[in-house]
Amino acid sequence: MTTTIKNLCVIGTGLIGGSYCLALKRGNLCEHIIGAGRSEQTLKNAKQLGIIDEYDLDIANAVSRSDLVFVSVPLGAMEPVFEQIEAGIQHSGNRRTVITDAGSSKLQVQKLAERIFENSKMFVPGHPIAGTEKSGPTAAFAELYDDRRVILTPGDNTDAGAFALVAELWQQIGAEVETMDAEHHDKVLAATSHLPHILAFALVDCMQNMEDIEEIFQFAAGGFRDFSRIASSDPVMWRDICLNNREQILEMMQRYRTELDMLYNALAAGDGDKLLDVFSHAKQIRDNFVH
Amino acid sequence: MTTTIKNLCVIGTGLIGGSYCLALKRGNLCEHIIGAGRSEQTLKNAKQLGIIDEYDLDIANAVSRSDLVFVSVPLGAMEPVFEQIEAGIQHSGNRRTVITDAGSSKLQVQKLAERIFENSKMFVPGHPIAGTEKSGPTAAFAELYDDRRVILTPGDNTDAGAFALVAELWQQIGAEVETMDAEHHDKVLAATSHLPHILAFALVDCMQNMEDIEEIFQFAAGGFRDFSRIASSDPVMWRDICLNNREQILEMMQRYRTELDMLYNALAAGDGDKLLDVFSHAKQIRDNFVH
Repeated sequence: MTTTIKNLCVIGTGLIGGSYCLALKRGNLCEHIIGAGRSEQTLKNAKQLGIIDEYDLDIANAVSRSDLVFVSVPLGAMEPVFEQIEAGIQHSGNRRTVITDAGSSKLQVQKLAERIFENSKMFVPGHPIAGTEKSGPTAAFAELYDDRRVILTPGDNTDAGAFALVAELWQQIGAEVETMDAEHHDKVLAATSHLPHILAFALVDCMQNMEDIEEIFQFAAGGFRDFSRIASSDPVMWRDICLNNREQILEMMQRYRTELDMLYNALAAGDGDKLLDVFSHAKQIRDNFVH
Repeated sequence: MTTTIKNLCVIGTGLIGGSYCLALKRGNLCEHIIGAGRSEQTLKNAKQLGIIDEYDLDIANAVSRSDLVFVSVPLGAMEPVFEQIEAGIQHSGNRRTVITDAGSSKLQVQKLAERIFENSKMFVPGHPIAGTEKSGPTAAFAELYDDRRVILTPGDNTDAGAFALVAELWQQIGAEVETMDAEHHDKVLAATSHLPHILAFALVDCMQNMEDIEEIFQFAAGGFRDFSRIASSDPVMWRDICLNNREQILEMMQRYRTELDMLYNALAAGDGDKLLDVFSHAKQIRDNFVH
């Protein structure tokens, strides 16, 4: 059995939202897609690229004509967007409208939904673990979610039908769905994604005043290239992730700082045994978990 | 005109030395390759893989029969290896034997060569900016140096003929040769390679006691995967690089710690503008230099 959707509203038609649309279209899973958002240029662009079928600058209006609303805007823009979604639902009176999102941090989004949506049980918080360092509609592609994981963080009251719809659509476009609670999600993602991005931004930024910066990039070997790639990610999105998952990220940064201080002290003392110990251990952990 | 070599001795037939041999063989640039080193198993393996033509556990003996000696052992093993090379040259009396190396740090190696080699002007310090996180003869492949940079750091007294031989062989196997002084090399590499490796080892190691470690690796997205890949690099090699380029690495670590503290404080204060500023700046630098 295939789950399909008649009218989809996608708010934010960049890499994440745009790829979701293209993947649904690839599978003929959606009849009609309305793009909504603030930037007419982005929406025009998305329409030209075949990502959406029409666009509407009035989010409430677009929502009032839709069965499923997919929110893929930076976390900092979620609050006004949620308010307009609620206005659209109030206007249409369609209490079965399902809402989902793709935010990289989940606890704050869940709290926001509970505060703003009168019928918050139709909200299914989600986070596709996929992306590239590129952004905007031109970066979108239908294969982005193939074999990637999507974490859904339903609350105790989340509607089972709403959850099933969102989960099945993700599965049908090729993703693997996992479920966990929002706080746990935020902790795991702080470690696997948020901290590494901060470390990468810091690495590139700390070189800004070095006189050899041109040479540094010229001789950058594989490690640095891979490492610094994620420093090209969207700065607004990452500011918002940091602010939204602040406690978990601060905890990971503290943990990291302790580790780095330990390595600094070992190197300053010329303690080769300690360095070998840490490096060997890290290699062992990494080799154990990555196949 | 093609520069070829009659008898090559390669000490350390792992990823770096092995790939050098395979690249020379690919181009028919070398008549005979003797592998030398401490581990008979590694040498047997290298012979079976067609990397070397014969092997000799007696480094001095292998050197005494060679025109060019390529040293690709971890930096910490350089001193005894250099001593045995010198013994081999003393024994053969061939003062024209050219010696080069592939060490990732150059100032200490250069000092070592000046101290140990009576005829140190025949030593051409080198560093190919190439590698993978794998090691050993099985990791070697002929294409490793294709279009990669090799930095040579000749001293004031380096013999011009020796330099030309080493440089031409690198060029003929597909690498691009750059020249700079040893201290400058160490500074640039501390930034582009040594610091990122330490950050990656630290990232993986700092997660060791987290209860969610299995999930952390399970949900590791692209950024983390790329980032942590280099934490699978050879721990002995990296211990030695750290100890050999200690001053430059400590300076970079201090610079990085200052940057990270600044970001930590901005996040703790909820200063979104500051975070956006740093992330935007890092993205701009990265996008400017990487094409």
